[in-house]
Parts: sequence; C-alpha cells; structure tokens
Amino acid sequence: MTPLFGRLTVAGVGLVGGSLAGAVRAARLAGEVVGFGRSLTNLRVAHERGLVDRVTQDPAEAVADTEMIVLAAPVGACTALAERFRAHARVGTILTDVGSVKAGLVKGLETRWAGVGPVVGGHPIAGSESAGASAARIDLFRGRRCILTPTRTTDATALGRVRTLWEGIGARVEEMSPTVHDDILARISHLPHLVACALAAAVDRTEVGGHVVLDYAGSGFRDTTRIAASSAELWRDIALANAPALVAALGEFRAALDRFEQAIETDDAAALEAALAAAQAVRRRLGRTE
Amino acid sequence: MTPLFGRLTVAGVGLVGGSLAGAVRAARLAGEVVGFGRSLTNLRVAHERGLVDRVTQDPAEAVADTEMIVLAAPVGACTALAERFRAHARVGTILTDVGSVKAGLVKGLETRWAGVGPVVGGHPIAGSESAGASAARIDLFRGRRCILTPTRTTDATALGRVRTLWEGIGARVEEMSPTVHDDILARISHLPHLVACALAAAVDRTEVGGHVVLDYAGSGFRDTTRIAASSAELWRDIALANAPALVAALGEFRAALDRFEQAIETDDAAALEAALAAAQAVRRRLGRTE
Repeated sequence: MTPLFGRLTVAGVGLVGGSLAGAVRAARLAGEVVGFGRSLTNLRVAHERGLVDRVTQDPAEAVADTEMIVLAAPVGACTALAERFRAHARVGTILTDVGSVKAGLVKGLETRWAGVGPVVGGHPIAGSESAGASAARIDLFRGRRCILTPTRTTDATALGRVRTLWEGIGARVEEMSPTVHDDILARISHLPHLVACALAAAVDRTEVGGHVVLDYAGSGFRDTTRIAASSAELWRDIALANAPALVAALGEFRAALDRFEQAIETDDAAALEAALAAAQAVRRRLGRTE
Repeated sequence: MTPLFGRLTVAGVGLVGGSLAGAVRAARLAGEVVGFGRSLTNLRVAHERGLVDRVTQDPAEAVADTEMIVLAAPVGACTALAERFRAHARVGTILTDVGSVKAGLVKGLETRWAGVGPVVGGHPIAGSESAGASAARIDLFRGRRCILTPTRTTDATALGRVRTLWEGIGARVEEMSPTVHDDILARISHLPHLVACALAAAVDRTEVGGHVVLDYAGSGFRDTTRIAASSAELWRDIALANAPALVAALGEFRAALDRFEQAIETDDAAALEAALAAAQAVRRRLGRTE
C-alpha cells in the first residue's frame, strides 16, 4: 500500500511533535518521517524511540523533497522556523502547525510561506505537563479533538490533506476560524493554566506558625495546580500570543470569583451554596474521565 | 487481643466517616463500630459494605455506652449533632470530629460537650470529589496526614486516644492549634476549591461562534476543576466557617494573578516567563503523585 504522504517533516519532536511523528509512522501514513529540532539530545531520544525515521539539525536537509512540514515548536518560534525553511522547501510544500494560539500565528505563517505553498493552521487538543520526546505517546491524539483553522485563503486540497493526516492517527478533526479558536481556548485552556500557576505562586513559600503551607497539599491542590508544572517557555508564548482573549477571559473569571467571595463575605449561605452547586453541575457535565 | 476501643460511634458514614469506620473495623481497633446518619439509604450501603457493625438513626441508641463519637458530618451540622447526643452519652465519652475547619467548630463542640467528656478536634487530609458510603475506602487515610488541633483545655489522655485511633489506621498524626490549621487549610485547600469552582462557573454556558466552550475541555481544564464536583453543602459550610482566613487567601491569590496579568498586558515576556517558571518550580516540588 502506498502511504498517503511521501516525506513528512516534523519540526520539534517534543511531546506533541514526537507523538504525532510516532503515530504517523505507526499508522504507515508517510513514506518517511524526518525530525528536526534544536536539541540534539531530544532528537536522539526521538530516533531511538522510533518516533522518526531520521533526524537532522540542518533546515535544508529537513525539508528537502518533503510534502508537508508540521511546526511543533513553541508558538513564538514558529514563524522564524518557517523563515528558515522557506528557501529550502520545494514549491507546493504544505506548512501546518500544532500551536495552541492560531490567529496571529496563521497570519504570520501565511506571510512567510507566500510563494512556497499552502498554509493550514492546526491545533490538536491533547497534551500533558510532561515535555520532550521521552514523554511522547503514539496514542496521544487518539479520540482527541484536532481543530483546523482555515482562513479565506486556505487551499481546500491542502486542508483536506492535513485533515486526512490527523484522522489517520485517530483524531476527531473539526474546523473553525482562527479567532473563534483563540477565544474558545483562552477560556478553556489558557485561563485555567494561568489560574493554576497563580495558585501555585500564591502559596509558594508561605509559612503559617512555622509550618510550610505547601507540605499540606492534598489531592485537591495537586490536581488544581498540575498544569502549572508545564513548560514556562511554551506557556509564555501562548499567553502573549493570545493576550487580548486571555485578558477578557481573566475578567470573566474574576467576576465569577467575586460572586463566591461576596457570598462568603456577606455570610450568605444560600447564595454560596447555589453558586457552588452551579459550579458542581458544570464540572459534572464533563464527567470523571477523558 | 482486646481492641483498643470498646464501642465507637461514627456520626455520618459518608466518604470520610465511612472510610474511617471501615478502616477501624478492618484493623480491629474497636469492639463495635456504630454508624449514625440522616440518610437511611446511605446507612444501609455502609452496613452492606461492612464499614460498620450496625446502624441507627436514633441518637440515644447511637451513643449508648460508646467510648468515642466521631462527628463526620458537614462542618455546619456538627455542633447540632453534639447537642443531640449530649443527653444520651455517658460521662467521659470522647467527642472528636473530622471537619475541615477547626477554630470555631472546636470551640462550639467544647461548649456543647462541657460536663460530658473531652473534645479533640481532628482533620484527616484525604478526600475525593466523590461522596457517600459507596465511595468510602478503608485505605483512604493510609499514609495521609491527620491533623489534631488541641486547645489549652484539651485532655491529654483523650488526645492520645484519638491519636492512637488515627495511627492505628495508618495516618500520620500531627498536632497544631486550630487557628494555625485554619490558616494553612484556607490556602492549600479552601482557596483552590473556590478557584476551581469559579473556573467552572466562568465557563458554564459560554458560547463562542456557536461552539459551546465547555465541549473543548482537555485534561488541563478537567484536572484544574475536578474538585468543583464536590458536595456544595460541605463546601458551603467550610467556606463560611473559615471566612476570614479564606478571604485573606483570596487576596494573596488575586495578587499573584495580577502579576501574571500585568506581564501579559505589558507584553513583558521575561517577567511572564519568570513568573511561570516560579509556579512550575512550586508545583514540581510536590511531585507527580501523592
């Protein structure tokens, strides 16, 4: 059986890129998967784990005769990567990505890739607080959503090929505009991340009566702050790239927190219980597991 | 072997009370464990699961000839329960509890139990968003902290007996004053709970471009809000009983959140990355598992 793709290049073989590369290989969707990255150690791990067929740190070698480049680097590094690849890619090479913020990034990639080939923004909603090729799992995207964010200029054939790639490794593909994506993710992903970080930061080295508060963390605190352990670099880029939507989401969160605080300060048991019950209902709609 | 306790009464055989009762039975620490509660259905589950030797809804029967009563009801219901038991308990009966807030509750119990027997405040730091005897697990407290909160008037022998009980089921017992306990728990437990609830409430039925935001929840949002699924009644009581410390903790959290928001609004990548890295370091100190 001829694979759906000839050569596929994954730039950044960390948790997401490495998992994608490994899944594509496992599903035999590409003739060859090339891994490109800045860390030789991580590239070696990716190669040793069989996530990629070969690795390189040379941009020309990475994208030579490739059909599709998947940018899986931190959001802030993607346009510079496209810039490095553009002179070496053959005309028609599809450029796609896995970034958590889309509007500014897709626009930047479209500019950088003009005259080379089509650009398709993508974002698989799967991850972990772990990082690197050692944390990659070929089933990371199975059953998970992958959002593709076509713009008015997106090539329909290229969009279809990127969809085929993600569906081929078990993701549920959905399309929406970059700005709608960013508004949704600000609320359901970027806001919770900042809140988890602020919770961890607030407690930091606080002591009460000679006791280190953090020592008393139970499963509640652990779960609530788990994502704060994620890469600071990745999340710096995400937060800055989606700043306006994130600031709006922070405003909505503060308003919700105010309602709880007001009920507590006024000792309004009925209002507090109603607010807690409403939050409980929201969370229970999600169910216990993924 | 003679058990350490004769009869033990657990008032409220939900997740915590039921787990305690079952653990005490499994460790053969008491001659008989009696379960008391307001829900007949839950009492039956506790009995069928072997968490208690027998159950009753009659306060006189519940505490007749018992050596120790463990109040494992919502914080706001405990003093009223003590009031109901006091006429039926024999002199010397130890009254203890598992409440998540201690200062006001211990004071209230000491008043209600004056002339009956010693009071020892307790709080095992273990739980789950699940509730009821069906969620009880006899290993719930194994290796977990249990904080006892003696006051100046606490009887040393009674304190030692309560310590023996918790140590006998594998908990790591620690003592501190009720107010120190409340200040610590406000920050490490009650604050994260409110924050998780506010996150869930903020997103609730928000739609963006026809998409229900909650549908896009990944593992980050799920973990961060998991504890919001807990009992609204329990947490209403906890928040109101610990209002001043919780409001202070909310202030600390808002200040931490402000630092993140300010770095985002001023596009200060270095400050944002430093703040994220500090939060990451805090969370990583906790490790991945319990």
